[in-house]
Amino acid sequence: MIITFLTDFGLQDDFVGTCHGVIKRIAPEAEIVDITHGIEATQVLQGALVLANTLPFMPEGVHLAVVDPGVGSDRRAVALRGGDGRLYVGPDNGLLVPAAERLGGVEGAWELENPAYRLEPVSPTFHGRDIFAPAAAHLASGLDPNELGPALEPAALVRLDVPSPVTGDGFIKAHVVIVDRFGNVQLNLTAEHLTGAGIDPGTQVEVEIGLQRFYASAARTFADVRPGDIVLYEDAYGNIALAINVGNAAEMLATRPGDAVGITIRRR
Amino acid sequence: MIITFLTDFGLQDDFVGTCHGVIKRIAPEAEIVDITHGIEATQVLQGALVLANTLPFMPEGVHLAVVDPGVGSDRRAVALRGGDGRLYVGPDNGLLVPAAERLGGVEGAWELENPAYRLEPVSPTFHGRDIFAPAAAHLASGLDPNELGPALEPAALVRLDVPSPVTGDGFIKAHVVIVDRFGNVQLNLTAEHLTGAGIDPGTQVEVEIGLQRFYASAARTFADVRPGDIVLYEDAYGNIALAINVGNAAEMLATRPGDAVGITIRRR
Amino acid sequence: MIITFLTDFGLQDDFVGTCHGVIKRIAPEAEIVDITHGIEATQVLQGALVLANTLPFMPEGVHLAVVDPGVGSDRRAVALRGGDGRLYVGPDNGLLVPAAERLGGVEGAWELENPAYRLEPVSPTFHGRDIFAPAAAHLASGLDPNELGPALEPAALVRLDVPSPVTGDGFIKAHVVIVDRFGNVQLNLTAEHLTGAGIDPGTQVEVEIGLQRFYASAARTFADVRPGDIVLYEDAYGNIALAINVGNAAEMLATRPGDAVGITIRRR
Repeated sequence: MIITFLTDFGLQDDFVGTCHGVIKRIAPEAEIVDITHGIEATQVLQGALVLANTLPFMPEGVHLAVVDPGVGSDRRAVALRGGDGRLYVGPDNGLLVPAAERLGGVEGAWELENPAYRLEPVSPTFHGRDIFAPAAAHLASGLDPNELGPALEPAALVRLDVPSPVTGDGFIKAHVVIVDRFGNVQLNLTAEHLTGAGIDPGTQVEVEIGLQRFYASAARTFADVRPGDIVLYEDAYGNIALAINVGNAAEMLATRPGDAVGITIRRR
Repeated sequence: MIITFLTDFGLQDDFVGTCHGVIKRIAPEAEIVDITHGIEATQVLQGALVLANTLPFMPEGVHLAVVDPGVGSDRRAVALRGGDGRLYVGPDNGLLVPAAERLGGVEGAWELENPAYRLEPVSPTFHGRDIFAPAAAHLASGLDPNELGPALEPAALVRLDVPSPVTGDGFIKAHVVIVDRFGNVQLNLTAEHLTGAGIDPGTQVEVEIGLQRFYASAARTFADVRPGDIVLYEDAYGNIALAINVGNAAEMLATRPGDAVGITIRRR
Repeated sequence: MIITFLTDFGLQDDFVGTCHGVIKRIAPEAEIVDITHGIEATQVLQGALVLANTLPFMPEGVHLAVVDPGVGSDRRAVALRGGDGRLYVGPDNGLLVPAAERLGGVEGAWELENPAYRLEPVSPTFHGRDIFAPAAAHLASGLDPNELGPALEPAALVRLDVPSPVTGDGFIKAHVVIVDRFGNVQLNLTAEHLTGAGIDPGTQVEVEIGLQRFYASAARTFADVRPGDIVLYEDAYGNIALAINVGNAAEMLATRPGDAVGITIRRR
């Protein structure tokens, strides 16, 4: 059984390795696929969007995710079962729900309360090791999720406030959600939003971030514009992003997750 | 058989991947759990403490660790067998001993001298690849450690000078040993030291680092104090650490491994 | 079957993890060895040299490598078969050829054009996920490479312009090719070049980089010189490198890949 694993733990410390060890002690046959551990620390929304982007490319299995600024508080720890049979484990802070909803919805939810499937005593600061990794390992070994704790109504799960874009005729107000290592700037937009605003490949637009304005072209890919030009394109996960051909868009636009972005068609 | 792997190699270069390849050529059935490769370069004490912290969470197997500023000098390369049957492989510079002593002591030790279980010619700069990874792989495949080279007296192994705290009535002199990616500052203290000095959860203390003084609270976890407050708490590995709720303690306290830390109860 | 994997994707984002997921969906039995994902972004030459350095230490299998600044352009995607039976998958930009030539030459080459072995629709920006990882996974599952697309003449593959050193009696003009995390500076030189110029262990040399000149010693390893001294030595992969014993040579010499380096014997 595959366990996928996504966190904001980084790879400098032993947090990820320790969770791997805990999983392998409980479920020696489980195989772990690390999606990423580079989510920005405590950025639940970023973690939720990356999980939703990537799970369609992952084998079905147990999907463990930990971005958990509320560790040690009274937020719940949960396991979910999706409509397609996938299982999810993580904090009840909205991290898991967008991925599950993209893949068939949430059909069942359980609170991780049974001490038999935790490492006791549970530390107040490392629930990844003591609650989440053990639950994922037991599920990968075939445990019935009903054994983990009381069932919850899926409707009672915490949902994230995913920012929605505003679109009109020839303009869009969006937000930056993720910046990757190449400086590509992912927005909370899909191709439908662009089409709805009348922006098609080839359309020239003006991009407004903070007090700055830039010209950009909508295009199929960044290789379709000249080096140095800014391009608005559909990225590999179906999100609309800003990039610079042979360059770092995030640096040039001086932007980061959370920034508002205005996009307006240039009328000539 | 599981091989756990801890180094200061980092993940930017191919050092870790090359050792994985060497292991898989010798022991195709071995499974590698990377504890961390983010130990600060050449910091043997940090490596030893992280290994001792994490091994209780790892499956029993062969525990390979390389933090080796003496590579190419005449320091010995060794394999150890612990009282609980675990095997250890690494340089004889103190890196392995604290973990083994926490888990049943060192029952046997061997010098890695048999060229049949090295990659020859051994390079003078990459013993991880040429001596340690091959030894770990052969042990994971069932090799008797006596085949690796001559036995050593466990008492002859190099020991680290692990800094000890000084505790009195109402005060402690300790040292910073590890800073993690979240800025949590681990000290060479356990809960017993705090109790011995009369510091319990709820106690208000003054922390002195260099020329600076800060107020802090002893607490069960950083979620128990207000955002921005400094907290002295028992971390997930049973070490005492300084943290800031919703903040980076290492940055605010401007501290790093090796710094002396004074902790005094505030009398009101 | 082993798949080795080398890229410039870094580990901050999900690119590597997503490719792992794609591979495990197609080839659940395949085992992935990550050589490194820390190649500097878009540096094909560095990727090619690291691949050639490390593959001799890897199990034979499918060798997947992606450093691909031309993604989305009309550069070809290819699979190669080496003289020793190894298989290679990556962009046709020279990345794969030096490794294959070091290990028996290129005996066969195929263009990755068959949509049955791609993830369709292929995104214009993430061929690692949509073309290269699927091809590697299908090959690891036993697919005949002829199924992937039309055969190419090995002679038609793109070759890198690997910089050659110039050597004379008592001097060498070389280039920096890789700087590692420890600050060791790998040059495009082998021990034969040094010997040809009359430089043996013990020879004192002058190193010229940019406008600066430094004294250095040729030696067997950096542990053979005093702390702080610069040493010219054969590294663990058989390349000549500059290092400082207990120091960071790249920082002190203020050098980076591509820099010209002059080495001259000091006559006394």
